Amino acid sequence: MSDDRKPLVISAPAPRTLDLVFSDEARRALHVGYRIVEADAEDIAGLPDDVLREARYIIGQPPLSEDTLARLKSLRCVLNVESNLFNNMPYETLFQRGIHVVTTGQVFAEPVAELGLAMALNLARGIVEADADFRAGKELWGGDGNRSARLISGAEIGIIGFGDLGRALNRVLAGFRARIRVFDPWLPPSILIDNNVEPASLDTVLQNSDFVFVVASVTTENQGFLGADAFASMRKGAAFILLSRAGVVDFDALIAAVASGHIVAASDVFPEEPLPLDHPVRRQAGFLLSAHRAGALDSAFKKMGDMVLEDMALMDRNLPPMRCKRAERETVARMRSKPVTVN
Amino acid sequence: MSDDRKPLVISAPAPRTLDLVFSDEARRALHVGYRIVEADAEDIAGLPDDVLREARYIIGQPPLSEDTLARLKSLRCVLNVESNLFNNMPYETLFQRGIHVVTTGQVFAEPVAELGLAMALNLARGIVEADADFRAGKELWGGDGNRSARLISGAEIGIIGFGDLGRALNRVLAGFRARIRVFDPWLPPSILIDNNVEPASLDTVLQNSDFVFVVASVTTENQGFLGADAFASMRKGAAFILLSRAGVVDFDALIAAVASGHIVAASDVFPEEPLPLDHPVRRQAGFLLSAHRAGALDSAFKKMGDMVLEDMALMDRNLPPMRCKRAERETVARMRSKPVTVN
Amino acid sequence: MSDDRKPLVISAPAPRTLDLVFSDEARRALHVGYRIVEADAEDIAGLPDDVLREARYIIGQPPLSEDTLARLKSLRCVLNVESNLFNNMPYETLFQRGIHVVTTGQVFAEPVAELGLAMALNLARGIVEADADFRAGKELWGGDGNRSARLISGAEIGIIGFGDLGRALNRVLAGFRARIRVFDPWLPPSILIDNNVEPASLDTVLQNSDFVFVVASVTTENQGFLGADAFASMRKGAAFILLSRAGVVDFDALIAAVASGHIVAASDVFPEEPLPLDHPVRRQAGFLLSAHRAGALDSAFKKMGDMVLEDMALMDRNLPPMRCKRAERETVARMRSKPVTVN
Amino acid sequence: MSDDRKPLVISAPAPRTLDLVFSDEARRALHVGYRIVEADAEDIAGLPDDVLREARYIIGQPPLSEDTLARLKSLRCVLNVESNLFNNMPYETLFQRGIHVVTTGQVFAEPVAELGLAMALNLARGIVEADADFRAGKELWGGDGNRSARLISGAEIGIIGFGDLGRALNRVLAGFRARIRVFDPWLPPSILIDNNVEPASLDTVLQNSDFVFVVASVTTENQGFLGADAFASMRKGAAFILLSRAGVVDFDALIAAVASGHIVAASDVFPEEPLPLDHPVRRQAGFLLSAHRAGALDSAFKKMGDMVLEDMALMDRNLPPMRCKRAERETVARMRSKPVTVN
Repeated sequence: MSDDRKPLVISAPAPRTLDLVFSDEARRALHVGYRIVEADAEDIAGLPDDVLREARYIIGQPPLSEDTLARLKSLRCVLNVESNLFNNMPYETLFQRGIHVVTTGQVFAEPVAELGLAMALNLARGIVEADADFRAGKELWGGDGNRSARLISGAEIGIIGFGDLGRALNRVLAGFRARIRVFDPWLPPSILIDNNVEPASLDTVLQNSDFVFVVASVTTENQGFLGADAFASMRKGAAFILLSRAGVVDFDALIAAVASGHIVAASDVFPEEPLPLDHPVRRQAGFLLSAHRAGALDSAFKKMGDMVLEDMALMDRNLPPMRCKRAERETVARMRSKPVTVN
Repeated sequence: MSDDRKPLVISAPAPRTLDLVFSDEARRALHVGYRIVEADAEDIAGLPDDVLREARYIIGQPPLSEDTLARLKSLRCVLNVESNLFNNMPYETLFQRGIHVVTTGQVFAEPVAELGLAMALNLARGIVEADADFRAGKELWGGDGNRSARLISGAEIGIIGFGDLGRALNRVLAGFRARIRVFDPWLPPSILIDNNVEPASLDTVLQNSDFVFVVASVTTENQGFLGADAFASMRKGAAFILLSRAGVVDFDALIAAVASGHIVAASDVFPEEPLPLDHPVRRQAGFLLSAHRAGALDSAFKKMGDMVLEDMALMDRNLPPMRCKRAERETVARMRSKPVTVN
Repeated sequence: MSDDRKPLVISAPAPRTLDLVFSDEARRALHVGYRIVEADAEDIAGLPDDVLREARYIIGQPPLSEDTLARLKSLRCVLNVESNLFNNMPYETLFQRGIHVVTTGQVFAEPVAELGLAMALNLARGIVEADADFRAGKELWGGDGNRSARLISGAEIGIIGFGDLGRALNRVLAGFRARIRVFDPWLPPSILIDNNVEPASLDTVLQNSDFVFVVASVTTENQGFLGADAFASMRKGAAFILLSRAGVVDFDALIAAVASGHIVAASDVFPEEPLPLDHPVRRQAGFLLSAHRAGALDSAFKKMGDMVLEDMALMDRNLPPMRCKRAERETVARMRSKPVTVN
Repeated sequence: MSDDRKPLVISAPAPRTLDLVFSDEARRALHVGYRIVEADAEDIAGLPDDVLREARYIIGQPPLSEDTLARLKSLRCVLNVESNLFNNMPYETLFQRGIHVVTTGQVFAEPVAELGLAMALNLARGIVEADADFRAGKELWGGDGNRSARLISGAEIGIIGFGDLGRALNRVLAGFRARIRVFDPWLPPSILIDNNVEPASLDTVLQNSDFVFVVASVTTENQGFLGADAFASMRKGAAFILLSRAGVVDFDALIAAVASGHIVAASDVFPEEPLPLDHPVRRQAGFLLSAHRAGALDSAFKKMGDMVLEDMALMDRNLPPMRCKRAERETVARMRSKPVTVN
């Protein structure tokens, strides 16, 4: 294709980079199929008029004013590779014009689900402590070391939130013959049933699970919705595994619930990241710690570029994007995740 | 049923106990359906003639001489609840007479599979080290902490041995979309294909796997069959997870392969158990340690009694046992597991 | 809830009726939760101003002018229970205003998939002919009657179109260990891979399948796209099963291909419905006939009402509909199904 | 291998032939690996002494006397490729000597399961009648033609007998989200649970199923065990599908139950085969007829040879056969299937 016939793409993926989110092969395909204008995310308005007029796609989620958006006459889609949605562009105008806003956060679902299952298995079998004891010459052999060990097979599992993460978690649990209940107020019950999980209220999930996985996004409505009462309502000895955002729990109450011996916990996310060195969770026994590492695998980032290419190919043919997740007019303003600062 | 009409069972489950292998409910059912004669496993010959003459089942695997066996005129089955088969009874005579010898080791399959998967996930994501670093204030956040992290989803997996443990492992891996190759010289390839795994040679399994699980029993023929050459043939950075018996590997060579940085490893079994305090594996980085805890869960032991009851119920009706695993005339003499000393 | 606080729903489901698409229980829930105004689909404009102003939902797809739509100030969603989309309302205005247009055709997926599988099994095993021969005393016993019989297990299957029908078909085929290739130009390949099917070109699907299922919608672009060349490219003896709309095939060419003995076929849809009594397909051997009965089960219709209730409940909470299928701005004008005249 | 070192096999597969049960490739492998002595099944005793002395395997199930068996000093296995077990050899002596008797009937499981599912779908959707009506110009369109149509998805299914056939049936039903209850008195409940079906009594299965599949073998104990009472206890309109042997039902009572309109039925097996031309079932509406064609596919027969080769390869290495099904000492004398006369 002669270069000036190629669709034009504005690249502003900060804090990601094109190199992070595209494999070498995908990067080549991107350049073969599109004209790429690398832009400063903070100054999209400063791009030449003809670039703005012709741009079909934006990779990234740079701040956009109504004026700039008005100049983006050919825009079909903002492809957000950060995966959180910020309130930095006039979404209503975008939706009116039929411009899609899509996110690629689905790439994290599989790695997060695997770490979540790993955390559950670790809590169930005391692997970290057993390894440390073995190295210290204090190990207990066989059944003596299994006094509090239990299985996921046949257990009752609760999942809070059934978006991409919840579904991936359900998938890696497929071989365990567990009973899985899900609380997700944004989904109709029949969709949960179609996915072979049981719709349940939050209370039911908390009270009847041996393992509770939290994979719900933070919204304007659910900040800190899991607090002291929630933890107290859980089964004695149950495991609470936090994978999405610290904002949905009262973190101090969670630490207290673990400290009291009522539950055990694992978390990949924290109220502040990085976390102060003197934060008490660092010394809490029964609390498995992971420094926001659940999703951030290079192989995951590289899938973002593949998703972007697949959806641009559909939109080039005047078809709707099917691979990335579309922001919803009703909910985009409710999302409240913090931006990432580290990839 | 009037007591003297009930079938007679000789109970000699040492080193287990009836209380370990039967739940309260199963224990009651046992006594409702059978006359139980508790015996010293080392002196079955010392039991009264009428007990030996009437005994339909033996729970346990006490030493039996040809003479004693000849006195056991009604014997239908030896129900071994230790799960290893010792060479302490005249198997050939048992088989000639059509007396079954069955084992209940299948109860360990699920817990061992879960721990095996947990070990693989731990090695893949560095969970033990990450938790320790976090506690020490040295954690790396996000992608910085994931330099060597990888997924099981989409990985190539090798399983050595496809008995109950291998099948359970395959089951808990069901949700991971992994490619699974199996080496098992005692099974025809088509049975592996029926189980949705690929039959492969040992070399192929070792050379093409990101994770190798060893769940093969020790036999007279395979002692130490996984040595320095095997580990060298593995992929750089691959994980070797030993779950069955230490006897199948050259353990020193395994430690050396991990020490060299070529592979990482996890093991639940060791050349000596308990292991001397100065054994070098206790200090080996990249080697996850578990003190023969994979199977020994109370919930697993309790299933043994259920299996015993189900199969005795079938045999009471002159049907063959279907729940426990039958010893095979061809292979019973080849098995070389050490007896357990700790439950 | 006092009646005048309930959201207002305009009911205009023709050619369906509320009684067809709602079970008794769902019908009660509808009336408990909503004020229902039954309207003549051909005269929505004739409804009182306050009804139009307050109406939150329309059940049905009545013709709507720009003027009428302008009067529908509170409208959130048109819930189409016919399942085909007609070009009878200003979709672009609807989309600009963020009014959803959703369809409930998903209810037909399961019954259509079951009939499709039944047709494939019938063609593979000659069940209709065998039953007729048996009644006529001409049956062939055992292998003698199986000269052309074959299995679906292990066969190569092609599916054209991977919307709700294609996915349901893939689901009922889950137990057959078949190799399934899918052609769907509106979906990115990775979504097909996520569904455990192989993305393939149309030619590859036609040339390499033992069974071809057509479940693609008719669009402005694909009318009659399966013609003589397509059938000629199929394997000798392969089965062609048409489940979506007759418009996607050259029906005369299909009959000719069956008449020539090259392929066998089954169809649930026809160029005219009802079909003239003298239509040649009625006499064609090797062609299994079904009078548009694949989806139209009462149990399917009743699910429409459940879907409508679930999505209205979400939209009442200012959440997007998740159960029904949303019309897409890019493709709504391309759909070309004929309306149903018989439920 | 020099020819006289190869293990010797006596071939007496009547009424099958080696050509029927071995593919060309398998036939070649057989001759490469073994010395084959083709024998008259009725005169094994007439074979030369050295042949009998050296024969390691017999393919077929020729009559064997104690004397002949005594001369078969190297015999390891009788590989029965007919799949029914006749009472024509001294089984007890075979078992005492550790000589396996194995059958290859498993090859029929998949084709029988597919036909069984096809029959269920046919009865549920009236496919045979709909096709005939369509050809006669009497078809009813859409819902009008579906008054008695129903789905397997979500239905309650009963399976009587859970050997190879029952398991294959369960497998092809995997995609239907049905509730499956199984009655099999020869299996412990926990094995059924492991296979994701519910153990149930015969009464429960009959009374609570929309579709009942009979795949039980005939034994000395269960001849005609499904009679008028059983059919009367079924749900009105339920479907009874007979796939194993006519001997397990009271066939006249079955016809009467269908004639009364209480149930519908399908059968692949009949009290006499071939069936007299004036047998009333030939004229019974609501009864789908198949002339013992469920299993007898050429592709199935050819798998027998593959199974034989796989198990002989294991036994050549002094391992037990794992692919074919072993006759059981307890039950071999109870089996009462008629021999096949037609392949």
